[in-house]
Amino acid sequence: MPKIFRKRSEKVGLPPGTLVHIGERKAEKQRITIIDYDETQFQERELETIEESFPFKDTSTITWINIDGLHQLEIIEKIGKHFNIHALVLEDIANTEQRPKMEDFDDYLFLILKMICFEEKDKRIKVEQVGLILGSNFVISFREEKGNVFDPVRQRIISKKGRIRKKGADYLAYALIDVIVDSYFLILERIGDQIEDLEEDLMDGPRQETMQAIHSLKRELLQFRKSVWPLQEMISKLEKGESEMFNESTQIYLKDVHDHTIHVIDTIEIFHDMLSGLLDLYISSVSNKMNEIMKVLTIIATIFIPLTFIAGVYGMNFKYMPILEWRYGYPMVLLVMLIIGVGMIIYTRKREWF
Amino acid sequence: MPKIFRKRSEKVGLPPGTLVHIGERKAEKQRITIIDYDETQFQERELETIEESFPFKDTSTITWINIDGLHQLEIIEKIGKHFNIHALVLEDIANTEQRPKMEDFDDYLFLILKMICFEEKDKRIKVEQVGLILGSNFVISFREEKGNVFDPVRQRIISKKGRIRKKGADYLAYALIDVIVDSYFLILERIGDQIEDLEEDLMDGPRQETMQAIHSLKRELLQFRKSVWPLQEMISKLEKGESEMFNESTQIYLKDVHDHTIHVIDTIEIFHDMLSGLLDLYISSVSNKMNEIMKVLTIIATIFIPLTFIAGVYGMNFKYMPILEWRYGYPMVLLVMLIIGVGMIIYTRKREWF
Amino acid sequence: MPKIFRKRSEKVGLPPGTLVHIGERKAEKQRITIIDYDETQFQERELETIEESFPFKDTSTITWINIDGLHQLEIIEKIGKHFNIHALVLEDIANTEQRPKMEDFDDYLFLILKMICFEEKDKRIKVEQVGLILGSNFVISFREEKGNVFDPVRQRIISKKGRIRKKGADYLAYALIDVIVDSYFLILERIGDQIEDLEEDLMDGPRQETMQAIHSLKRELLQFRKSVWPLQEMISKLEKGESEMFNESTQIYLKDVHDHTIHVIDTIEIFHDMLSGLLDLYISSVSNKMNEIMKVLTIIATIFIPLTFIAGVYGMNFKYMPILEWRYGYPMVLLVMLIIGVGMIIYTRKREWF
Amino acid sequence: MPKIFRKRSEKVGLPPGTLVHIGERKAEKQRITIIDYDETQFQERELETIEESFPFKDTSTITWINIDGLHQLEIIEKIGKHFNIHALVLEDIANTEQRPKMEDFDDYLFLILKMICFEEKDKRIKVEQVGLILGSNFVISFREEKGNVFDPVRQRIISKKGRIRKKGADYLAYALIDVIVDSYFLILERIGDQIEDLEEDLMDGPRQETMQAIHSLKRELLQFRKSVWPLQEMISKLEKGESEMFNESTQIYLKDVHDHTIHVIDTIEIFHDMLSGLLDLYISSVSNKMNEIMKVLTIIATIFIPLTFIAGVYGMNFKYMPILEWRYGYPMVLLVMLIIGVGMIIYTRKREWF
Amino acid sequence: MPKIFRKRSEKVGLPPGTLVHIGERKAEKQRITIIDYDETQFQERELETIEESFPFKDTSTITWINIDGLHQLEIIEKIGKHFNIHALVLEDIANTEQRPKMEDFDDYLFLILKMICFEEKDKRIKVEQVGLILGSNFVISFREEKGNVFDPVRQRIISKKGRIRKKGADYLAYALIDVIVDSYFLILERIGDQIEDLEEDLMDGPRQETMQAIHSLKRELLQFRKSVWPLQEMISKLEKGESEMFNESTQIYLKDVHDHTIHVIDTIEIFHDMLSGLLDLYISSVSNKMNEIMKVLTIIATIFIPLTFIAGVYGMNFKYMPILEWRYGYPMVLLVMLIIGVGMIIYTRKREWF
Repeated sequence: MPKIFRKRSEKVGLPPGTLVHIGERKAEKQRITIIDYDETQFQERELETIEESFPFKDTSTITWINIDGLHQLEIIEKIGKHFNIHALVLEDIANTEQRPKMEDFDDYLFLILKMICFEEKDKRIKVEQVGLILGSNFVISFREEKGNVFDPVRQRIISKKGRIRKKGADYLAYALIDVIVDSYFLILERIGDQIEDLEEDLMDGPRQETMQAIHSLKRELLQFRKSVWPLQEMISKLEKGESEMFNESTQIYLKDVHDHTIHVIDTIEIFHDMLSGLLDLYISSVSNKMNEIMKVLTIIATIFIPLTFIAGVYGMNFKYMPILEWRYGYPMVLLVMLIIGVGMIIYTRKREWF
Repeated sequence: MPKIFRKRSEKVGLPPGTLVHIGERKAEKQRITIIDYDETQFQERELETIEESFPFKDTSTITWINIDGLHQLEIIEKIGKHFNIHALVLEDIANTEQRPKMEDFDDYLFLILKMICFEEKDKRIKVEQVGLILGSNFVISFREEKGNVFDPVRQRIISKKGRIRKKGADYLAYALIDVIVDSYFLILERIGDQIEDLEEDLMDGPRQETMQAIHSLKRELLQFRKSVWPLQEMISKLEKGESEMFNESTQIYLKDVHDHTIHVIDTIEIFHDMLSGLLDLYISSVSNKMNEIMKVLTIIATIFIPLTFIAGVYGMNFKYMPILEWRYGYPMVLLVMLIIGVGMIIYTRKREWF
Repeated sequence: MPKIFRKRSEKVGLPPGTLVHIGERKAEKQRITIIDYDETQFQERELETIEESFPFKDTSTITWINIDGLHQLEIIEKIGKHFNIHALVLEDIANTEQRPKMEDFDDYLFLILKMICFEEKDKRIKVEQVGLILGSNFVISFREEKGNVFDPVRQRIISKKGRIRKKGADYLAYALIDVIVDSYFLILERIGDQIEDLEEDLMDGPRQETMQAIHSLKRELLQFRKSVWPLQEMISKLEKGESEMFNESTQIYLKDVHDHTIHVIDTIEIFHDMLSGLLDLYISSVSNKMNEIMKVLTIIATIFIPLTFIAGVYGMNFKYMPILEWRYGYPMVLLVMLIIGVGMIIYTRKREWF
Repeated sequence: MPKIFRKRSEKVGLPPGTLVHIGERKAEKQRITIIDYDETQFQERELETIEESFPFKDTSTITWINIDGLHQLEIIEKIGKHFNIHALVLEDIANTEQRPKMEDFDDYLFLILKMICFEEKDKRIKVEQVGLILGSNFVISFREEKGNVFDPVRQRIISKKGRIRKKGADYLAYALIDVIVDSYFLILERIGDQIEDLEEDLMDGPRQETMQAIHSLKRELLQFRKSVWPLQEMISKLEKGESEMFNESTQIYLKDVHDHTIHVIDTIEIFHDMLSGLLDLYISSVSNKMNEIMKVLTIIATIFIPLTFIAGVYGMNFKYMPILEWRYGYPMVLLVMLIIGVGMIIYTRKREWF
Repeated sequence: MPKIFRKRSEKVGLPPGTLVHIGERKAEKQRITIIDYDETQFQERELETIEESFPFKDTSTITWINIDGLHQLEIIEKIGKHFNIHALVLEDIANTEQRPKMEDFDDYLFLILKMICFEEKDKRIKVEQVGLILGSNFVISFREEKGNVFDPVRQRIISKKGRIRKKGADYLAYALIDVIVDSYFLILERIGDQIEDLEEDLMDGPRQETMQAIHSLKRELLQFRKSVWPLQEMISKLEKGESEMFNESTQIYLKDVHDHTIHVIDTIEIFHDMLSGLLDLYISSVSNKMNEIMKVLTIIATIFIPLTFIAGVYGMNFKYMPILEWRYGYPMVLLVMLIIGVGMIIYTRKREWF
């Protein structure tokens, strides 16, 4: 199962602002891409060095720098120096064990979000940290590894679909937040489907695997909730205009995203309650199964143990057992046994055992 | 069982304001009806095209446009253009997976509510989204499919019953909200009846179906709560005069509806607690049943196993077993068995087993 | 068991302010009594028609009109017209399925409370709605049926006991609220006694009836809480001077009642927790009982099943079983059986089974 | 077990301000003591009648009147008249079933607190009500019976230890509250010890008494919490300077007491959670014990029942059972039995049953 | 297991401000160290007497006095006198049973924090109280015993790493708080690892030790939570600038620490939920194991008890049992037995018992 909690021991005692990469260190090189656009122009490039992106800072166009991979700390440091980013922010970008949060500085806004995706090969949820820096005309996004979550936004910029080319950098930041939140719904759908499968499974009868499936779904929801709750608080603050980096015309879009996060949270709570319900159902069906088994055992034992005793009595080897000599002894005993057996069956039936 | 969560994957990554119908796509045509009235005049018509309704916008009478069916997105789009509605609102109307909410724009108010009805044929709750746009002299209502929930309001307009013809569009919007909330009580009544049936069932003894019935009632309450909680927040805001679309004279009616939603929520919570109580009762009666069965088994076994052993001893074929030759051996052994049997019965009775 | 939720389906879709009596329709006539007093004068009368009470409205004395029985809607209507009461208030008086609440109008205050009494014959709690209208010099009280809860107040007015004759109509309203809240303590005492009885019962051992008693006490507490919580909110508002109908000198008395309602709520919560504790105790003692039974079964079986097997072996009819011929075969086998039996007893004792 | 809820039925319907003693009526006489001091002088006396204390009211020294025993209502009444105390306050002093609370009047402050002590002889917690009236230069304390909780304060006054002789009546009131809250820690220590004893008990195995001990500790915590929660609210208000009876220099001491009450509440919550943990541990160890017993039963039965059957087969009396005549029949059957027995043991071992 | 609650009975009734050491009294001498630095100079010394530190108070450099061991109350008293500390603060320093809290005085700020470390030898969490006094140019830290938690800060001061030498005493206080909070993550990692180990254990099957491990982890989390919750409240107040002792430039660092405490709390809650999940898993796997055992018992009994009965019948010694004489009696009976046995197996298989 996935680690709920990644090691950050190496950080203990270091002075604040020290860059340490917390997370799974990837061997591959980091990828830096840049998209620069305004209503009329557009260019997209993959950069070799981060320095290539610096000239774009001072143009009037909107610049989106995307960095995939956080283990090369010098890139983060260089960005920090060039864009004048606070040391604590750089530290938070490198340390992927952060709660989602926003921090508002005078000339830029720093956001941490969590991307959640389902890994087909491990059949488990993976949480990835995304750092966003929103300046007046640029957005810098940091991701732990390559992925395609931001592709729809890129497509919209390229194809001029929607308003994105007409709006500012804040709208771009909004669009990135929006696709991340949208991707949560995919995970919810999958979890919802799994819950319904479990429900049908339970109708057939309890199985130990069902229990473990309930357990790991619960765990995934815990992890999910951990990422979404602080996100909701953060977007709520943004939506209420706490940061001046977002124009008023963009705030109505943030309100929309905020509604989505609340919807996600509601659904997580409902799923959580449904899983508790399934647990109750599971436990009750286990104990029903047990009851059923016990009934069979008891019926069999109740009928045959007394009969076996009777047979045992007439199997004793006493010399003087007059009934043994009686011609109708055997049939009489069989008859008595039959009566007792039928009586026991009637008794158990009356008690509604089967 | 019903889907708690409808697929919305197709929406992921689309620019905000893109109209996508989320919900069960209906084959049939959408129905558009219009009711136009003031204190003295009244007309009602079913329209072929939405354009026919546009002239009513500028009259001084109150206009109620009702659209049943949301899959023909061009109708929503046309309304949006003519009534100057924000793209995000139109998107929310088409996407039936929304939380109840209100959004206040300068010249109109947008509300999302959930209609809940019981489907006789599936024996399950169905949740349907209703969108309301309230302008200064018009109300536009969007429903997922035809239904008769709004009929009482229509009747009151036609028959001039109550105040509705003397009041403005905000009163009409209130009346629509009111009938929706009223209909919740019908569902609560039904759930209340089912809970009482379950309670009586449990008095007779536990059955696995009872458990499943408890489970699916719990699930329905979860779904219900999900719809009513945000509704209550929304009406609370309206009642406190957060939107200027509602006159002060209408606010006292909203307070009334608000009381009803709180009553609904209280009742949902109580039902939830009662179902938890039933679950406890169920589990305890299952384990009582088990106890009873085990007692019978133990009594039978406790009495007969030792006796069978004795019979077995005297059934051994040793050559030198003097007691076997004794004339009173058989009756003596029977007597001993009787004493042991009776002793065991007394013992189990003393332990209050039956 | 009592209905948690009374039918109100007949109200769905009716315009607001329509009078519909929700509740158990009583055949008997309504009773109207009037008490009119100030510091020096006093009169009490039972009225035939509500109209007889109208002249009192304009006198300077304090007038208390009490109506028992709500099914004759024309009386409520006439009062509404004469005292100029809002239609929604009249509707709430007739509909006995209301949450306790206050509504402040310019020249009167409307309160809904719940009276709770224990019905000896059904051994169950009964909740009855009381409506109070407090004007500048009158109080109108509406009850579902005749009862003696208000008698102490009447007595105090007649006997001039306490301050009641020197104070205004608001003090009278306070006195009525006070007796209702006081009567809650009687119910709490009864429930507390029942809980203690159950506790003693459980010391003796678990019984299925205990479980059902716990269940129905829990249910009664749910119903109780449902009535008291909103009452507490309402009195809290009054005590803080939210309505001008209560003089400042009366507010200190309301603070006293408020303390009582909080005490009631605290006690309900504690009772609820105690019942949960009893449930745990019950379940644990059921499973202890089960354990005890299983131990007896296991001990008997563990001792005798091997012995019976041995007896069975020597009961086989093989021709060549040398031991059978041996003179000391029988006593030796009995000895072996004794050793095995005693060994088994020692083994089970060591495992601390008994 | 102790009554959670004392009878107050006799109060129902009485006018507010009527003095009724609720509590266990003590036969013995009430004891009135007076301590009068300032920085230089000190006197302590036991009074015969309450009237003797009245002259002290108007001196400039600080006067502490302590009344032990509340059943002689005329004393309370006389104090009320002389010190000009509101009738509702007197009523609350006599009625020992009050929640802790403060009430601020213009020239005095009224406080209700709960003293909690452990009664050695009944092995149970006892809750006793303390009423405090704080005037500008006097404190009147009312207790249900004699006790030594206030002794340390008395000692400090006599011995001039600490600041108490230099400070005003408010500091005296603080000192009394402080010793009461301090005494809570004694009870917590005792409960903590009991919980640890229970924990060790459970390591040895489950016993029914353990369960009952858990249950009654839970109950005591409920009672404790009921007394401390409102106390914390009350001290919080005082500490924030809501009453002018406490000087600013005393408020920092109240903050200290407030920290203590919060510490008490935290500890109660933790104890509550620990008891729930013990309950889980108990239930799980009961079911482990059950499992162990069932395993032994099943192993015995699984091994011997088939063998007994085989023995039974060869004990049948058919005339033509060729194997019986066979010379090696008996040893062969014994061998088969041995193989089956050993096989069964291996099978159960493989399933990790023992 | 560790004491959740240390004795403080000796304090009851003492006047406030009396120094009493609550905690485990250590025999060894207290250690006093002093570090004095500014951007250019640095000195570190171990002091024999506390008086040696007093001259540093009035220099312009930043002075950090660290006291390890609290049992020598005269040191605390002397510091109190020289630095003019309130008596209640000194009392709180000596009494190690305090909740984390802050208290703001005019010229210094007093903080209580809890250090949590894992003791290898007892395999348990140990909580240690740390008191901090922050003045304008000095920090005094009080610890219960020697330890190395503050070493990284000392190192940073010595090596001039980070900003610490350039900043004021408030930054030093922040740095100390920061290392304490950082050390929490080490404990969380350890607990997280233990939870994952338990999870894997449970996959193999339930064991009684697992249950006890779950129980003691839960207990540790309770203790942990008790220390961190009030800490979070305290840092939240500091971060919002409630005390003027912290410069605005340091507040952003406090915000960072605050994020960490919230992260710790989140993780504690998640661990708590995971442990509850493990408990459910444990209980369900215990009852599954039970079910499995019962099935084996029932199958064996169901198959062989009827067969044994049949064998018993033909072992009876009646004289007239014609079938016994029949040549094919024996094989026929064996056949019947076989059919019954196979029938029983088919029956149990159909019921999906194995």
